[in-house]
Amino acid sequence: MEDPGQYLAMMRQTAPLVHNITNYVAMNVMANVLLAAGASPAMIHAREEAAEFAGIAQALSVNIGTVSPPWAEAMEAAATVAGEKDVPWVLDPVAVGATGYRRALGARLLALRPTVIRGNASEILALAGAVSAGKGVDAGESVETAENAARALARHGGAVVAVTGAVDFVTDGTRAVRIANGDAMMPRVTALGCSLTGVVAAFAAGQSPFEATVAALAYYGLAGERAGAASEGPGTFQPAFLDALHAIDPAALNAGARIELA
Amino acid sequence: MEDPGQYLAMMRQTAPLVHNITNYVAMNVMANVLLAAGASPAMIHAREEAAEFAGIAQALSVNIGTVSPPWAEAMEAAATVAGEKDVPWVLDPVAVGATGYRRALGARLLALRPTVIRGNASEILALAGAVSAGKGVDAGESVETAENAARALARHGGAVVAVTGAVDFVTDGTRAVRIANGDAMMPRVTALGCSLTGVVAAFAAGQSPFEATVAALAYYGLAGERAGAASEGPGTFQPAFLDALHAIDPAALNAGARIELA
Amino acid sequence: MEDPGQYLAMMRQTAPLVHNITNYVAMNVMANVLLAAGASPAMIHAREEAAEFAGIAQALSVNIGTVSPPWAEAMEAAATVAGEKDVPWVLDPVAVGATGYRRALGARLLALRPTVIRGNASEILALAGAVSAGKGVDAGESVETAENAARALARHGGAVVAVTGAVDFVTDGTRAVRIANGDAMMPRVTALGCSLTGVVAAFAAGQSPFEATVAALAYYGLAGERAGAASEGPGTFQPAFLDALHAIDPAALNAGARIELA
Repeated sequence: MEDPGQYLAMMRQTAPLVHNITNYVAMNVMANVLLAAGASPAMIHAREEAAEFAGIAQALSVNIGTVSPPWAEAMEAAATVAGEKDVPWVLDPVAVGATGYRRALGARLLALRPTVIRGNASEILALAGAVSAGKGVDAGESVETAENAARALARHGGAVVAVTGAVDFVTDGTRAVRIANGDAMMPRVTALGCSLTGVVAAFAAGQSPFEATVAALAYYGLAGERAGAASEGPGTFQPAFLDALHAIDPAALNAGARIELA
Repeated sequence: MEDPGQYLAMMRQTAPLVHNITNYVAMNVMANVLLAAGASPAMIHAREEAAEFAGIAQALSVNIGTVSPPWAEAMEAAATVAGEKDVPWVLDPVAVGATGYRRALGARLLALRPTVIRGNASEILALAGAVSAGKGVDAGESVETAENAARALARHGGAVVAVTGAVDFVTDGTRAVRIANGDAMMPRVTALGCSLTGVVAAFAAGQSPFEATVAALAYYGLAGERAGAASEGPGTFQPAFLDALHAIDPAALNAGARIELA
Repeated sequence: MEDPGQYLAMMRQTAPLVHNITNYVAMNVMANVLLAAGASPAMIHAREEAAEFAGIAQALSVNIGTVSPPWAEAMEAAATVAGEKDVPWVLDPVAVGATGYRRALGARLLALRPTVIRGNASEILALAGAVSAGKGVDAGESVETAENAARALARHGGAVVAVTGAVDFVTDGTRAVRIANGDAMMPRVTALGCSLTGVVAAFAAGQSPFEATVAALAYYGLAGERAGAASEGPGTFQPAFLDALHAIDPAALNAGARIELA
């Protein structure tokens, strides 16, 4: 991928309305991340309106982090509408292996054929049905461990699958790349993974999902690198990260992206 | 208005207990904004206690951003008690035009006669029944477009109506002023509009709603100007903004307020 | 207590999975605080999975700040499992005296015998059945006022009770200490008390509850002191505070802790 910057440029030009049904921990961070990146976020979760709203958004993200039954209903309704209207939607299967309730919901959402699935290695392994030892929402497994599961999941569901960690892995079942951008402080700040899912949705609005996902991950990791250099700990990392998301332009992304074929 | 600082001074002196039924995205920011300003925030939304708590607070703010039916019930119950007890309450009709569910709830809350209504132009137009094209929670319309709707809404409901944007517009149906304070970065930080609604409620506790609203908007915009000057992007804007809310005193507000008759 | 640093060291070494059922305002801050401190937070509240998850966590924190009936059920179910499996659990009775709904829930949770109870003076007084005038979630009473109530509550429930304020007071009904660490800006930042409850839970995982609580409070207050020195207001205090939680090591805690027998 020679020019990931074009996907950032197009996202900013269209400023897509991204509908997010996400968890309580991530909601504020995700809205700020999407605003800083140049998209237009909306958090709408009530069963009474989620499906209607999914029909007017340009992309949808679904995250099961703090899910409960009414939210799960809204997720399924919104994802169904997104599928019917060809609105790209991204699934973030937070801690999907942790409880029986999550495993069942994960399977139902998978059946609704997400455009992109983004998770850590434990989550992708759990979603792929492999044995995993997910601990909380942290990745207990290395990205490499989940590469085969990611390829299988992508082929099975016709989805792009992104496994994020120290080095990210993205596959559509045929092609695969690794993205080496990022900073060691990112796992010490909550909701950065969840918020990335929203950015992937914003990039996927009207753009090819595989390339859009790769570009989104490189952009996000590059912002992390800048924030790491500009901060002194997990607290000052956060404002620096939002500033970097806002400041990085397509040329800077092309210069800083570290993408290679897997 | 020669002396908006007096409204800030009185608010800080009484440190009003402000009851907020607001959205998940804004809750933390709003609490921090109110604490930095000098008020005492409480977030209480359960149907089992919202009405009881509204009776002991000095002001109430109601925001429909991430509303669902149990929350809507609590909003209506709390607003009813506020009306009965002459506790000022402020309505923030987030994205009220976006779905049928929101339009119906907006109409029900309007019928409970809020003391102040604060929204962006799209929301005020939608609430006034005019045709609008609200996109997410961003303002798709300019403030000027909504001035007539704001005047009509104020006369109809006996409320002070504040339309916020690059230049804010406040009317009670008879009088009207514009407030030019603010910073271009504010729309790139989530929940700043929602949190302003809480500040308006705090200023309106025991003070004349029209003047209190104008003073609150000037104070908030001035803090935005200081934060803009002290930050490098939407991330560093946020801590600088809270610092500015905390640091601005009545004399500084009087010196920096840009209020004129409309 | 000569060596509070050993409790920090052990907490970091085990990086306990802390299950938090907390309020919407605090959730993000608490997750970041726990990550910065070195623990592994998870926010899980649905009735469908809270009890199951409580059985795999190393500690549980329960906070009633924005409670509603389904959350209350999950709190009781999770606390019951924690009691059965000897998982330490910490109760944060936010504004427990404010409404009848809260008083009833507080009594039910107390009957499930929390390992530690952490609140401000108003909350401890209310929980102990004494007359109190809690205002929002702020402490309307001084810590000293609640010392006898704290001792009584500790003896009655077999719990460690921590009353936090300008100078904290911790008792197990027999022993008692005061911790003088902290900064005057802390009450002006929302959710710092709630997040402290999570840190107490993390320290209590596999460690003696009384000593763990004392060490957690000294550590937290010391981070506040560093943040106060490094910031200019309540906004810049927050990132500085997370940086300090991350930076303080056991030796620094031992050097800076201000603990004395009460």
